[in-house]
Amino acid sequence: MTDNNNKFQAVTESAAAAANFQQNPYGPNPADFLSNVNNFQLIDSTLREGEQFANSFFSTEKKIEIAKALDDFGVDYIELTSPVASEQSRKDCEAICKLGLKAKILTHIRCHMDDAKVAVETGVDGVDVVIGTSKFLRQYSHGKDMNYIAKSAIEVIEFVKSKGIEIRFSSEDSFRSDLVDLLNIYKTVSKIGVNRVGIADTVGCANPRQVYELVRTLKSVVSCDIECHFHNDTGCAIANAYTALEGGARLIDVCVLGIGERNGITPLGGLMARMIVASPQYVKSKYKLHKIRDIENLVAEAVEVNIPFNNPITGFCAFTHKAGIHAKAILANPSTYEILDPHDFGMKRYIHFANRLTGWNAIKSRVDQLNLNLTDSQVKEVTAKIKKMGDIRPLNIDDVDSIIKDFHSGITTPALKPAKENEPIEDSVDILLDPQGPAFKKAKTVAK
Amino acid sequence: MTDNNNKFQAVTESAAAAANFQQNPYGPNPADFLSNVNNFQLIDSTLREGEQFANSFFSTEKKIEIAKALDDFGVDYIELTSPVASEQSRKDCEAICKLGLKAKILTHIRCHMDDAKVAVETGVDGVDVVIGTSKFLRQYSHGKDMNYIAKSAIEVIEFVKSKGIEIRFSSEDSFRSDLVDLLNIYKTVSKIGVNRVGIADTVGCANPRQVYELVRTLKSVVSCDIECHFHNDTGCAIANAYTALEGGARLIDVCVLGIGERNGITPLGGLMARMIVASPQYVKSKYKLHKIRDIENLVAEAVEVNIPFNNPITGFCAFTHKAGIHAKAILANPSTYEILDPHDFGMKRYIHFANRLTGWNAIKSRVDQLNLNLTDSQVKEVTAKIKKMGDIRPLNIDDVDSIIKDFHSGITTPALKPAKENEPIEDSVDILLDPQGPAFKKAKTVAK
Repeated sequence: MTDNNNKFQAVTESAAAAANFQQNPYGPNPADFLSNVNNFQLIDSTLREGEQFANSFFSTEKKIEIAKALDDFGVDYIELTSPVASEQSRKDCEAICKLGLKAKILTHIRCHMDDAKVAVETGVDGVDVVIGTSKFLRQYSHGKDMNYIAKSAIEVIEFVKSKGIEIRFSSEDSFRSDLVDLLNIYKTVSKIGVNRVGIADTVGCANPRQVYELVRTLKSVVSCDIECHFHNDTGCAIANAYTALEGGARLIDVCVLGIGERNGITPLGGLMARMIVASPQYVKSKYKLHKIRDIENLVAEAVEVNIPFNNPITGFCAFTHKAGIHAKAILANPSTYEILDPHDFGMKRYIHFANRLTGWNAIKSRVDQLNLNLTDSQVKEVTAKIKKMGDIRPLNIDDVDSIIKDFHSGITTPALKPAKENEPIEDSVDILLDPQGPAFKKAKTVAK
Repeated sequence: MTDNNNKFQAVTESAAAAANFQQNPYGPNPADFLSNVNNFQLIDSTLREGEQFANSFFSTEKKIEIAKALDDFGVDYIELTSPVASEQSRKDCEAICKLGLKAKILTHIRCHMDDAKVAVETGVDGVDVVIGTSKFLRQYSHGKDMNYIAKSAIEVIEFVKSKGIEIRFSSEDSFRSDLVDLLNIYKTVSKIGVNRVGIADTVGCANPRQVYELVRTLKSVVSCDIECHFHNDTGCAIANAYTALEGGARLIDVCVLGIGERNGITPLGGLMARMIVASPQYVKSKYKLHKIRDIENLVAEAVEVNIPFNNPITGFCAFTHKAGIHAKAILANPSTYEILDPHDFGMKRYIHFANRLTGWNAIKSRVDQLNLNLTDSQVKEVTAKIKKMGDIRPLNIDDVDSIIKDFHSGITTPALKPAKENEPIEDSVDILLDPQGPAFKKAKTVAK
């Protein structure tokens, strides 16, 4: 049957496409011929967008610590707050430029010569220019029309280029801007020559297929790279980043834990979870994924927030399996219920077996760990006792072990199992049989 | 110019389509002729999938409290843990069925007659049947082939239907299942008649455009409604739900705060944030959105987690604006930097003005609140002083007020502003000028 299938495929599909698809059905769609899913870059904006997060106040030392950690992780660019935001912002920008990091250093300014003149003197590798193009921003923010925007853009771009550093031009609130206005301004700046144009979903309204369409359309208008910036107000910032790459965008703005204005933007860790599924080799070879937890802890500590309980990858239960049917399959092969391998991120998986949803396969593993010898039907019997207790109250590991040991001492032929036998099971899948998984404790949150 | 535009549109576009698009560019795409974005239903699974969350242990009383809150909010269905999971699970299921809620009560079982026989006796309005169809699950979970799956499915479906209640058949791990196998089994069960077929992204691997394609394809094969269930391992659960509706799915599985196996599924609140942007009238008329915060607090308390700092809608800073350029525009018109109106959810917006990124428009509002009289250039001067202090350390409201009052008393013609004048500004946009926005306090998280 396998042979027949292979022959059939050889006739009807190109061997390469078939092999590629079979290798990874979550890889780039072959129909997306402009896709950069296998060739994307990260612009980390924790020290710019992230500074706009309500709780943020980064000292110079903390900024340097974060910049070094991001550089070590492997982000391609680090974006910093505008040097005109405050005197210390300018000094910090200069200090980070002097660190000699591998990542290129950018600063983010309004599309204005006053800002540009200060920015180019800081030592940055590039300047990210932004201007609002939606009717909202044109009316309530800067109050200028598209002709003025084009004129300012050209002046600032030519000036930054004359200094020999990178330049990105971005619209703000791109998804509420007039499409013709947008394409006009992007075409103009692409013609005079920029490194990147940026699309920004400033209010977090865009949905994935909208993003794909706009990126594809823009890709046919400009000859430079496309960078995308997605706010997360409606929970689509990771998915939008992914579909932007499918459509041909090359660079994604991220922040550690997604911190930024309101509830923030595409999170670095969450995007890595998405991208490792689509492009495992590229992601693993380029980024130090096992550093994600440390970087998130560093930033969470600095801005005084907890890692969300449901955070991708590093949430306390991201690799905890509970229902009996899940535990059974995970014990046989973790890929059954995991698309991410915790080891890729320096994390571990847990089986949460001390609860009423548990199953006899999970309890059998615990029996093996305790080096006790029970038949399958005996394990099923003790599992029923555990589920009964789990109906009454939350269980801990001592409860389960007591029930198992009581049961074991009550049967006629208690015998210790040879110690060797249970080891391969545990080693082969690296499962921590922890009754509660890693603990997460609720704390008081003061919200007005 | 407006007149010309209108004439042009009248000639080139159907008036209805144009009007619809202009009303809401985030509404359903007219090209998605099967879209249910304006006609979706919610199946809340907090008491099933949510019970599989690592921290969950719901007492009978808590289950009833949660079920009533969900019913009051307006979810269409409430899904409960299988009655065969444990004795108490069965009793709780019966108790919730007797509450007489508006929402239909479902229970979720394996595709097996043993489970079905117990389920139909609980008093539920419908049974959700699931079976693994991926090669992983077929090998490591139940070990059965597709013929066996079809045979079991038909038997269980016919049996449940004979009891006069609703039946849903779902594959598990649908996105790693063979497409032909999937379509075959769905076609079979659709022919014998089911209320819904379900697609489940059990491992959280799917991306939005994949979801759209699968739903569209399935829609051409079955004549019943399509329900979708998305895990959030790679951060796409909300976006996938949205594209599923665009493709023609009708029902989305959600949990409060997204709690479930690992890092959970599509969150109720997050999906409401997405859907209110796309379909404001439908969402506002059908669901009590101002109850989201209470329901989230209820469940968070029950499972001992914090509301994530970056949670859509209810995250402590979801409506907090910080950068000076944002604050300025928000003061003029909140829609400039908001796609969600906090009032729709019983929430408030905040301007975080006591920091080095602040701008003179935000400070001017504070000056007005303090009923002081300063010219614009004086406000700019005092703003510079505030930014300077904000460079040195985090500020609080007293710091800013002291700086403003010092400055005010130092100028030559201190005068109180007429009290009336500053009121319209505040009332019209309902902005709380809070130096820190709502507070979020970090707590110790014990993670192994």
